[in-house]
Amino acid sequence: MASPTKRGPYAKTAARQREILDAAGEVFATHGYRSGSLKEIADRVGIDASTILHHFANKSVLLQRVLEDRDALSPRDAAPQPAAGPADTPAAFLRLARANERIPGIVELYTLLAAESATPGHPSHQYFHDRYARVRSEFTAAFAEMADAGLLRPGVDPEFAAVSTLSVWDGAQVQWMHDPGAVDVTETLRRQLELLTTVDLDDA
Amino acid sequence: MASPTKRGPYAKTAARQREILDAAGEVFATHGYRSGSLKEIADRVGIDASTILHHFANKSVLLQRVLEDRDALSPRDAAPQPAAGPADTPAAFLRLARANERIPGIVELYTLLAAESATPGHPSHQYFHDRYARVRSEFTAAFAEMADAGLLRPGVDPEFAAVSTLSVWDGAQVQWMHDPGAVDVTETLRRQLELLTTVDLDDA
Repeated sequence: MASPTKRGPYAKTAARQREILDAAGEVFATHGYRSGSLKEIADRVGIDASTILHHFANKSVLLQRVLEDRDALSPRDAAPQPAAGPADTPAAFLRLARANERIPGIVELYTLLAAESATPGHPSHQYFHDRYARVRSEFTAAFAEMADAGLLRPGVDPEFAAVSTLSVWDGAQVQWMHDPGAVDVTETLRRQLELLTTVDLDDA
Repeated sequence: MASPTKRGPYAKTAARQREILDAAGEVFATHGYRSGSLKEIADRVGIDASTILHHFANKSVLLQRVLEDRDALSPRDAAPQPAAGPADTPAAFLRLARANERIPGIVELYTLLAAESATPGHPSHQYFHDRYARVRSEFTAAFAEMADAGLLRPGVDPEFAAVSTLSVWDGAQVQWMHDPGAVDVTETLRRQLELLTTVDLDDA
């Protein structure tokens, strides 16, 4: 029976790039970008380091592709439902946090690179700068909608709600990486959202 | 006039070790432990890398000494007043946050190493694991005292207050490292403490 799957050199190239990107994600998550070597990535795939450079111009291009790839893949693979409206926004945050629990390697990659890339000159410096600005802006807009719907606790402004939610999330992830039994990221986020909003999250 | 300062080979050794530790702190803060090289540390001091190994057995011993040194130095150098009692605890957190603003390099070193050391096998793996456990325990005890004094907001328990305070602090530092103008760590912490406690922090 004929398969509708792509065959031939293009399919082979795509499959090889997929293997390299997956191995690179694992190596960068373990050692960081600076110390993670092309040799270790190549060894995991069972190829020469020079073959990686046939597919990706250099190590920083490879890192950028890993990051874009993860951003593109996460919504499809781990697909939590987006918020149905301001009253559902806190629950949507928790759905995303639970989806992240299923991809710990990606969470660790982001956490390490977020810290590592703070140094100017790191190839992901601009990426993470822009990513934080974008996420803060999206979170602020979501909390502003909640404020308009009367769902924020007295004295809580949308910008602080956004920064503190993002900070609690990132900070709790670092503690969870060090001691998964000691800190529950989703539960910490749930309690933070209960502190910021009047939405009942008991069943979320 | 005779100086009371130590002289001779011991003073020279101590001064050289001080230079190496300071340079190592800067290099590890910029590149992380894994990528920060003994050669770069030696270049900053103007010595050979082999001279570093005369003073410190290997790179991980050097890192451990940098960390211990910072823990020992911070209270003396940056010396914020400890809490005078439960009602002063939130203000004491803010004094420490403001003291950290004067040592951005150390904050960056800790933030990067906290993420990097989550991988088992990193020489600071145990150190950061233990440090987070100790800080969570100290913070929990401080918030429990506040709870006993009736200073926590309804529904806030001491353990969540401790984890969220530490998480907001760490997470806001990462965002501040990427964009110092966008996120004010001390101000974010102040608002978090206002959310957790009933203590008035307007003048703190």
